[in-house]
Amino acid sequence: MAIRIGLIGAGVMGAEHARILTTALSGVQLSAVSDPDAERVARIVETCQGARGFADPVELIRDITVDAVIVASPDQTHCNLVLACLDIEKPVLCEKPLSPSVEECLTVIGREQALARRIVTVGYMRRFDPGYIEMKQRLDQGELGAALVMHCIHRNVAAPSFTTAQMLITNSAVHEIDIARFVLSQEVSQVSVLTPRKSRLSNVQDPQIMLLEMDDGVVVDAEIFVNAQYGYDVSAELVCEKGTIALHPPNDVRWKHSARESYALPSDWRARFTLAYRAELQAWVDALPRGAGVGASAWDGYVATAVATAALKSLASGRPTEVKLASRPALYG
Amino acid sequence: MAIRIGLIGAGVMGAEHARILTTALSGVQLSAVSDPDAERVARIVETCQGARGFADPVELIRDITVDAVIVASPDQTHCNLVLACLDIEKPVLCEKPLSPSVEECLTVIGREQALARRIVTVGYMRRFDPGYIEMKQRLDQGELGAALVMHCIHRNVAAPSFTTAQMLITNSAVHEIDIARFVLSQEVSQVSVLTPRKSRLSNVQDPQIMLLEMDDGVVVDAEIFVNAQYGYDVSAELVCEKGTIALHPPNDVRWKHSARESYALPSDWRARFTLAYRAELQAWVDALPRGAGVGASAWDGYVATAVATAALKSLASGRPTEVKLASRPALYG
Amino acid sequence: MAIRIGLIGAGVMGAEHARILTTALSGVQLSAVSDPDAERVARIVETCQGARGFADPVELIRDITVDAVIVASPDQTHCNLVLACLDIEKPVLCEKPLSPSVEECLTVIGREQALARRIVTVGYMRRFDPGYIEMKQRLDQGELGAALVMHCIHRNVAAPSFTTAQMLITNSAVHEIDIARFVLSQEVSQVSVLTPRKSRLSNVQDPQIMLLEMDDGVVVDAEIFVNAQYGYDVSAELVCEKGTIALHPPNDVRWKHSARESYALPSDWRARFTLAYRAELQAWVDALPRGAGVGASAWDGYVATAVATAALKSLASGRPTEVKLASRPALYG
Amino acid sequence: MAIRIGLIGAGVMGAEHARILTTALSGVQLSAVSDPDAERVARIVETCQGARGFADPVELIRDITVDAVIVASPDQTHCNLVLACLDIEKPVLCEKPLSPSVEECLTVIGREQALARRIVTVGYMRRFDPGYIEMKQRLDQGELGAALVMHCIHRNVAAPSFTTAQMLITNSAVHEIDIARFVLSQEVSQVSVLTPRKSRLSNVQDPQIMLLEMDDGVVVDAEIFVNAQYGYDVSAELVCEKGTIALHPPNDVRWKHSARESYALPSDWRARFTLAYRAELQAWVDALPRGAGVGASAWDGYVATAVATAALKSLASGRPTEVKLASRPALYG
Repeated sequence: MAIRIGLIGAGVMGAEHARILTTALSGVQLSAVSDPDAERVARIVETCQGARGFADPVELIRDITVDAVIVASPDQTHCNLVLACLDIEKPVLCEKPLSPSVEECLTVIGREQALARRIVTVGYMRRFDPGYIEMKQRLDQGELGAALVMHCIHRNVAAPSFTTAQMLITNSAVHEIDIARFVLSQEVSQVSVLTPRKSRLSNVQDPQIMLLEMDDGVVVDAEIFVNAQYGYDVSAELVCEKGTIALHPPNDVRWKHSARESYALPSDWRARFTLAYRAELQAWVDALPRGAGVGASAWDGYVATAVATAALKSLASGRPTEVKLASRPALYG
Repeated sequence: MAIRIGLIGAGVMGAEHARILTTALSGVQLSAVSDPDAERVARIVETCQGARGFADPVELIRDITVDAVIVASPDQTHCNLVLACLDIEKPVLCEKPLSPSVEECLTVIGREQALARRIVTVGYMRRFDPGYIEMKQRLDQGELGAALVMHCIHRNVAAPSFTTAQMLITNSAVHEIDIARFVLSQEVSQVSVLTPRKSRLSNVQDPQIMLLEMDDGVVVDAEIFVNAQYGYDVSAELVCEKGTIALHPPNDVRWKHSARESYALPSDWRARFTLAYRAELQAWVDALPRGAGVGASAWDGYVATAVATAALKSLASGRPTEVKLASRPALYG
Repeated sequence: MAIRIGLIGAGVMGAEHARILTTALSGVQLSAVSDPDAERVARIVETCQGARGFADPVELIRDITVDAVIVASPDQTHCNLVLACLDIEKPVLCEKPLSPSVEECLTVIGREQALARRIVTVGYMRRFDPGYIEMKQRLDQGELGAALVMHCIHRNVAAPSFTTAQMLITNSAVHEIDIARFVLSQEVSQVSVLTPRKSRLSNVQDPQIMLLEMDDGVVVDAEIFVNAQYGYDVSAELVCEKGTIALHPPNDVRWKHSARESYALPSDWRARFTLAYRAELQAWVDALPRGAGVGASAWDGYVATAVATAALKSLASGRPTEVKLASRPALYG
Repeated sequence: MAIRIGLIGAGVMGAEHARILTTALSGVQLSAVSDPDAERVARIVETCQGARGFADPVELIRDITVDAVIVASPDQTHCNLVLACLDIEKPVLCEKPLSPSVEECLTVIGREQALARRIVTVGYMRRFDPGYIEMKQRLDQGELGAALVMHCIHRNVAAPSFTTAQMLITNSAVHEIDIARFVLSQEVSQVSVLTPRKSRLSNVQDPQIMLLEMDDGVVVDAEIFVNAQYGYDVSAELVCEKGTIALHPPNDVRWKHSARESYALPSDWRARFTLAYRAELQAWVDALPRGAGVGASAWDGYVATAVATAALKSLASGRPTEVKLASRPALYG
């Protein structure tokens, strides 16, 4: 009776999904894995009883032992794989971004709209992080008044050597774009990217500061710094009319030694967002029998890409860039 | 292929186990539930597809659709149910205490020893709390030097009206006894109970301070306060030769309002120990096929009860009480 | 032998200076007070043994019982009073701003330069706050690498009813301008002011976000929010190549009650910067016999006003504004 | 018009008093210094304009240029010096302890009582620490209900080589005794001293745990650990019927580096209690003209010594020791 999941992509992200699916989730089993790298597939199949390897991801999608699909393959492949799922109305959780291309995102939306029901979830997992959820709840419950400003921090220890200046936006800042929209329940109307003094420990422009102007005037500033060295650090402060709410690194285990008190910072996204990834997958799995859409929708995936695309323009031009969105189909509420 | 669990006891604790088993664990299903209260059983069976109700817990234990048993029934029933599991060598996770009676605990140990393998796990779930685990690891890794003192805090919002002064020891302090032994890797040689000024919001002596002297001289002081009103608060500080390590309430989501910055405290053990309960059950389930004992053993269950029994004597006499333990069978390392 | 101070201005700021001078400083006495409001003068003279009231501030400056002068009168009067001090080479600590007018600031600098020694200190007291000092020291000592970004927060509970949108810059943001220059040891080359959604609890554009670009590319973002309601909150985070350093509200006294742990936030600048004001005045007094300049110089006063003036232009135009500074006289190092 | 202070004792404590008196206090000057070590005297006289050295402390006490006296000489000399002050009704702030001998303390009290006014202040400076003051205020204001338990921590980096096991009580624990009485407004009825596993970095029994039972049943536990290595750490948690209030090390300046966030701990009592020492001296000086007693009285000094003496008995016997106090003279409220 367990729901059978097919996983496309067995890299770092895919392997983490496989690990969660097979060790930490209820009501689910990993039945199929696909990746161009056969060794990676073999490694996962070995540890997951009952999982089969597939050379062709579309074959995996169509296999009758697969009830739903997770796409964790390279970004450019996302759109076609999601479309293949839409073709047969098989639910799919696609890792972010839905696609790096605005046009592809719109194609997905069009196709899903034609089906008149939500098939696609995009893996913006922060929407399942307890901290961001509490932030949104406290805002929505009104005690703090209206939101005015949101300060975001996104720091990684070190970026891979192939990282470009653009990837700070397309890989990292997209998370800030999505979570700001989620917390604030507003769309983005303008985006600018500032380029502070570059760290000498980076080959590209790093850090960057992205400024979002939301439809209702809220300003979001997000520092993206992917070679921050000291730790993985994602946090936010929401400033409202009567108070603020902020996320801080967990510090409930503290030690005193050598003239200081300290607590460990997470080393990467796995440590920081363990609960969010687990909760996202469990919620998605739990919703499958009900056919309910949970998490970020294809629309959310499209908007994140559209805003990121405008941000890339701003990075190139040094000027604020307007964000023009397609009109929101009724399917997305 | 999922491991089939039979649950005995469908009260608050049992219902929480059922919830975790059916919504948050991998590789497991709830196949049977037993409780004298048929309505409670019905409520759980309803939400857990495939679970059957049993009137007789021993019948549940013996049923072939039950691979392993969780005992979450009233304390006095624990021993006989565990013995019934031992009779047929069916693995059992028994909620704490193993038994309120030292003699019963020794009977269980004797029977398990005769089988020459560990069948019984006792539900001292703090051993799976990330905070206590990190505390033990940092102690064991040596950087802080030897442990000298451990300060423990155990506060509940409010105790049920039937709570007696003794129950602060048998229900709450046993957790402190077990976790101190776990963190310090030492047995207890003496225990005293102090009775501070009684809160007027309690009917019985509350708070109490329990002092443990460990075999190597480490002193553990534990404040037990079950009508602390403000929140559920369990924490500890381990004081070593070169530094300390302490657990604090999570405070990663903080809001500023009305002239203060605040963070929410957990309201009960479910909120505080969610991860510990989940990790305990998953680890136990994962270990079942390997036949490996995880978590607190029957020996640990015996010692907690033996020390608590000595603490009850101290509470009555107002004097320190020596703890005399049976000799530790080889089975328990 | 105590140094005799003449105080010009007996409003909120002046009264606070009088209080510190007469109750918390060593080697000093308040010998003279001047204010157009005779009652205010009387109130201070009453409590400060030996202090005389003056109707005319210039008379006070010239009085031989006054060794040094503190100017805490309205902003537009600062320049002339400082010039009167320079006329007779009497040391003066002028509250910020040195003058709201760039031209007046330059006049002061020209006059001081002619004397070839520093007579003027401007009351940017944050330079004496232990937190900012530690921030600067840790940056200068190099372990964190070069500074890249500085995030600043400046929140007041509520602004007086006569507050204009411009006053967020001229009254509040000037502190951020000065402290950023102090910590970073850099001048400002460009400034922009963003106008987020306005709080409905303010009559004017509030909050505002000021962005500074420093000579070496460091970006400083400063949120100025003078009707933040919940408390007085000034903090900063300096982001460097290998780590960060941040200031947080003091939280060393915490209480647990009603399901939360809380600590009190300061209610105004007096509570937050008590130590800074005291340290500034004591350092200034201590330096008087040595003729040494301490704290922010006339040059620093000029730059703060020049940057604020550019920020006002940006507020009006909605565009980044270049900051062009006069060349720095040798007197100012 | 400044009040002229004579300082007896120019060791570490005396030098610190001299520093505060001459650099950080209002309305006061250091006019005389006495110490058997002439070099120490010379060093202080050099930096404090107008101060004279005295070979004989009693001569200093009697000198007409001395309005009030601070006694910071070795403990055994305290009583006679305080009595010399009482002889001529000259106000004296005597460093703790008033005397190591209960009898001597009673002699002082008898003599002061005969004068029918308070002349003597004992330097239990924590009564002026903002944290302990806030703790007492919150307790007294009633929102938290009655006090039930108080947990105290007193840790030093390293004790001098001549430190004995007894000195943990007479030098360190006396501060805990005094502050517990101050916060709780209660006397001590019983004291026990526990001896946990000894740190191998200490030559004597260290740490120790002192348990106080107060008249109204409140239990105070105080860990005294004078070779704690990692830092100077003094804190407390007061547990009341409806909530708690606790002191923590200041952590408002935090840096993130090398996978952790840290803040510096104070290295000694000077860093931790700077504000308390300053406030104590200023309050004492300010009260001199009014003849008002501030801070800990001779009675408080007596009780601290009496409880410490009982604690020494408990340390020797291993058993709880009753505390029998003289009856409190009306002079002490």
